[in-house]
Amino acid sequence: MKNTRITLAQRPQGMIKTTDFELVKEEVSDPKVGEVLVRQVFMSLDPAMRAWMDDDRDSYIPPVEIGETMRSLGVGVIEQSKHDGFPVGTRVSGFFGWTEYSLSDGSDLTVLPDGVPLEHFIGVLGLPGLTAYHGLMEALGAPEAGNTVLISGAAGAVGSLVGQIAKAEGMRVIGVTGSDEKRRWLLDELGFDAVVNYKTENIAEKVREYAPNGIDFHFENVGGEILKVALDNINENGKIVLCGLISTYNNVGETTGPDLIRVIKKRVTIKGFVIIDQMHRFNEIFEKLGGYLEKGQLKYRLDIVEGLEQAPAAINKLFDGSNQGKLVIRL
Amino acid sequence: MKNTRITLAQRPQGMIKTTDFELVKEEVSDPKVGEVLVRQVFMSLDPAMRAWMDDDRDSYIPPVEIGETMRSLGVGVIEQSKHDGFPVGTRVSGFFGWTEYSLSDGSDLTVLPDGVPLEHFIGVLGLPGLTAYHGLMEALGAPEAGNTVLISGAAGAVGSLVGQIAKAEGMRVIGVTGSDEKRRWLLDELGFDAVVNYKTENIAEKVREYAPNGIDFHFENVGGEILKVALDNINENGKIVLCGLISTYNNVGETTGPDLIRVIKKRVTIKGFVIIDQMHRFNEIFEKLGGYLEKGQLKYRLDIVEGLEQAPAAINKLFDGSNQGKLVIRL
Repeated sequence: MKNTRITLAQRPQGMIKTTDFELVKEEVSDPKVGEVLVRQVFMSLDPAMRAWMDDDRDSYIPPVEIGETMRSLGVGVIEQSKHDGFPVGTRVSGFFGWTEYSLSDGSDLTVLPDGVPLEHFIGVLGLPGLTAYHGLMEALGAPEAGNTVLISGAAGAVGSLVGQIAKAEGMRVIGVTGSDEKRRWLLDELGFDAVVNYKTENIAEKVREYAPNGIDFHFENVGGEILKVALDNINENGKIVLCGLISTYNNVGETTGPDLIRVIKKRVTIKGFVIIDQMHRFNEIFEKLGGYLEKGQLKYRLDIVEGLEQAPAAINKLFDGSNQGKLVIRL
Repeated sequence: MKNTRITLAQRPQGMIKTTDFELVKEEVSDPKVGEVLVRQVFMSLDPAMRAWMDDDRDSYIPPVEIGETMRSLGVGVIEQSKHDGFPVGTRVSGFFGWTEYSLSDGSDLTVLPDGVPLEHFIGVLGLPGLTAYHGLMEALGAPEAGNTVLISGAAGAVGSLVGQIAKAEGMRVIGVTGSDEKRRWLLDELGFDAVVNYKTENIAEKVREYAPNGIDFHFENVGGEILKVALDNINENGKIVLCGLISTYNNVGETTGPDLIRVIKKRVTIKGFVIIDQMHRFNEIFEKLGGYLEKGQLKYRLDIVEGLEQAPAAINKLFDGSNQGKLVIRL
């Protein structure tokens, strides 16, 4: 059987280029005793990948090596099995990487429950859901009902879920996004209270207007100007959770952050988190997410790109903001 | 009786200039029934004063108004009394401001216990002691014995106490200061494990050398480069307490901070605090400080400047780092 996979050919300088990857065609060997062959069906593209491509030996996860299959999380189906725990047809998730097929001894696979479309496990019941719930409700303690929550990257995979969970919990939600189409979706379909289009509006002005009594909690996916505006409007004892700083990931040279004087003046707490730390709590958190889902409180959209070979070009949709929902590759 | 006081004449642009103040000579009226006249003996000069001089209506404390007596904390003695609670000779502390004499109804005065030199209440048993203890041991939870603690402004009023409390609690302490004389004092007399002179040494290199296993806790008084270095060397789940950012207080125009990506990668928590919030806990914390004092674990030095009229020039010693210990005016 033929397999296609994509390896990291060189470390990107600034934005990711398609020439940073290499397409490899190869034969797939049959699984040995105790192994399975997984066919990947959906593959997740995430902002964190940009960091995995850098040679940062001190990060929470080792970098992808040159020549190694690019790392990614995906969902798939067991195609061949010589492992009693994983019959053919079992649906699984795992860090398969940018590849159609992969062999596994099962230790790195999570069996997915039936009755839910496979792509849910890459979105609302996947890392984005886990990230949104943990970041909003657990990382620094949940904001209270009635609190004003600001969310950057609000139409993104994580941000759109953060906003809906916050609404379900009775908070006031202000989102920042990059197009009027996304704004309409957040306001009309997800029930955000106010949304700023940072590409056409003055963020500082609009956040002040939409949060006249200040911000109690800020969920940061983007960094840069919005983080400065969040600090300028934060209330006493405010909380800022740093989930991502995507606006800085492709920077070459030194990146600066906001003046932190208001962290002192307003007694702010800032906390960064890495969702991989919470992987062992998947089931516990998925139960919470399932509760919102059952009540119809979580809507979600996928931006599906067809074909593994499109991944090297498609990943930049995350960085120019042109993705419409969670970015996935259908293989 | 004649009094001298100093008012804020104009808001400083950048560094404080002596022309930002005005000296006022006036008659002191006698206390009315229920009032006392306090003669100030020591007056504290603190970095926070720079912020009080700005027109920031959104700060934790209202700005000093133009024409108003400059705000400060001090210790003094009751000189005349028509208040039964405060006999003549009682030693008190309070926000007297830049003035020799002041009238009070007693509601803003704290009576000081006997048996301790008056100047202690402006230093080790004053705001610096409270700030050091709360910031290190309470604001984000105390570091553990054996943890490595980094302190900027290490020879300052607060920093020198933070380091000694940390040593008393069994931590490893690295200080950053601005002269070899201060370094020797921190190493030889206060027992710091290592000290970097940021004016003559490469901070990044030296912190890496002195903390080969990383920093667990950073106590920030200064900001700027040292905060960047702290983040570059922070361990997983590291804590950063922001007490002050003195290197930025005189900035004109926009101030930037460090890249916060490592707050995410290392799951760091950053917390700012304002010691005025803990004023009601003075006695509780002073008991803790008294415990260290009794064991000889807290040494302290004062930089005493003689005469109220020297205050407008002396305050800049805080910002150019030329003060040798806690800066006070003796009236």
